[in-house]
Amino acid sequence: MTETKPIRRIAIVGTGVIGASWSALFLAKGLQVVATDPAPNAEASLRKFVKSAWPALERLGLSPGASQSNLEFTGDLARAVAGADLVQENGPERVDFKQRLYGQLDELLPADVIIASSSSGIPMSQIQVGARSHPERCVVAHPFNPPHLIPLVEIVGGAKTSEETIRRAREFYDSIGRRTVRIKKEMAGHVANRLQAALAREVYYLVTEGVVSAADVDTALSWGPGLRWGIMGNMMLNHLGGGPGGIEHFFEQFAGPMANSWKALGSPVLTPELQKKLIDSVHAEVGSRSIEELEAERDEILLGLIELRTGPSDAAAPRKVAAHA
Amino acid sequence: MTETKPIRRIAIVGTGVIGASWSALFLAKGLQVVATDPAPNAEASLRKFVKSAWPALERLGLSPGASQSNLEFTGDLARAVAGADLVQENGPERVDFKQRLYGQLDELLPADVIIASSSSGIPMSQIQVGARSHPERCVVAHPFNPPHLIPLVEIVGGAKTSEETIRRAREFYDSIGRRTVRIKKEMAGHVANRLQAALAREVYYLVTEGVVSAADVDTALSWGPGLRWGIMGNMMLNHLGGGPGGIEHFFEQFAGPMANSWKALGSPVLTPELQKKLIDSVHAEVGSRSIEELEAERDEILLGLIELRTGPSDAAAPRKVAAHA
Repeated sequence: MTETKPIRRIAIVGTGVIGASWSALFLAKGLQVVATDPAPNAEASLRKFVKSAWPALERLGLSPGASQSNLEFTGDLARAVAGADLVQENGPERVDFKQRLYGQLDELLPADVIIASSSSGIPMSQIQVGARSHPERCVVAHPFNPPHLIPLVEIVGGAKTSEETIRRAREFYDSIGRRTVRIKKEMAGHVANRLQAALAREVYYLVTEGVVSAADVDTALSWGPGLRWGIMGNMMLNHLGGGPGGIEHFFEQFAGPMANSWKALGSPVLTPELQKKLIDSVHAEVGSRSIEELEAERDEILLGLIELRTGPSDAAAPRKVAAHA
Repeated sequence: MTETKPIRRIAIVGTGVIGASWSALFLAKGLQVVATDPAPNAEASLRKFVKSAWPALERLGLSPGASQSNLEFTGDLARAVAGADLVQENGPERVDFKQRLYGQLDELLPADVIIASSSSGIPMSQIQVGARSHPERCVVAHPFNPPHLIPLVEIVGGAKTSEETIRRAREFYDSIGRRTVRIKKEMAGHVANRLQAALAREVYYLVTEGVVSAADVDTALSWGPGLRWGIMGNMMLNHLGGGPGGIEHFFEQFAGPMANSWKALGSPVLTPELQKKLIDSVHAEVGSRSIEELEAERDEILLGLIELRTGPSDAAAPRKVAAHA
């Protein structure tokens, strides 16, 4: 294993919704953050976001040295990345833009500095074409929004990404309490967004077919199978669903019925009419509750669930790095 | 609204996994339970299950009068249902069996006693053919396993089920802290099992294609989108995902990309080879952990999450019946 400099200073390139949330997370983990974004008012918006996110991060546990005062902002890209140990890039999802940006970053940064993209839509194989000298240090590290609350980080390399970069990236995000997954092939939507899309397709189908209201399909998910999906994944739950015979028995019993049930699943076409039906049903569910109120409710329980699963002390201290390497 | 006798005495017909779990739940809610099952050792297995389930039910909060001593067992169907206010039927999933059983129950029971089936596979329209005199009091009340822990109950009528039966059934399950949904069309798998099938299809696809290991797809679900699905449903989360513009803005932004992503989702065929790949990957994830250990971990967090969402006091007292009627 190569000895490399510990990652202590992060450059955030792009401080929109995702970049701001990453910034808050890194600060809470006791890291130095230098952020840059060309938008007017970017610094004020960023500092406002970090301040608003801080109470939740305190509740989950700050790391030693964590402070909002470790945040610097500069409008200048070169100054932002000078001395950075890792760049978290959250620029617009346009391939030409990202290729040009990675060209600049590649010239500005020593070869051992990882450039990690939050991209959900553009494969790293395309992005890293711009980094002519050291494409091997470029990797996708895709969070699940908002990164400061949701622990998942999807790690995907492009054709030219080195295993060393993937290993170091995974170690870094693991060390700050993230739950990383290694995606071995570049896929549209990585993994988590695909799972969301698969579920949403059937949800929309059932509501637009008039089988169930939005309120009732939400009850069915969140008081039924959804209760377990924030605890364990589908495969492990299948293993337990097989009883003492485990996953083998599960497939003996259910592979046939499951495959049959797939034939009956829906493939809705989201016409304006069907969208209106979904929208109307959601409004009937929401009633007079405001978005702020609902968000607060969601995030309160989310924090509680994360605490249940990690314990506050575990969340506060960087976890022992798992043996991925 | 018709005045009807309060539901205080439940007959459990069939005390397998589902029937035993229902029994434990009804006892915890302070109800009288008379159970019947022709299997040898059925009574001993049932009492053992109820005893093992009791600590979790105590933690969620017992209703006044709740006691394991309110459980009676008889091998005789007629004695079991005599004086029952509601029958919860959990017999084998065979249409001929259920039709014959509903014929017997229909003859044994006064017309205002609801016969509720836990069936996941056979439409009530077929089952109630057996209940020649009063098919209108037959309804599916499908729980999500295990019913004593997971609050969801799916309510579906057959062609001859009365609205009055559906209303009374929903009120009853709501009154004992269940979260009911009204399914307006008979669909294979009702709603929750279809959502599970839709998700599992993509999970199996990603693992069998070598995109991700079972461990990593489970991490992606349970530390990513799954964290929210036990808090709110897909439709409400879409509403919040639209920001201040809500569900309208969500569809403006994402209807197109979502529909595109559906085209890329997988349709695996569960050949023996692919099942083996899934099984091997699950074993790599499970390692040396026993099924008992994993079940205990799952249920501990599940109880915690349910407490977070309901509060112990709310779970203990029967909830105010929502205005479904």
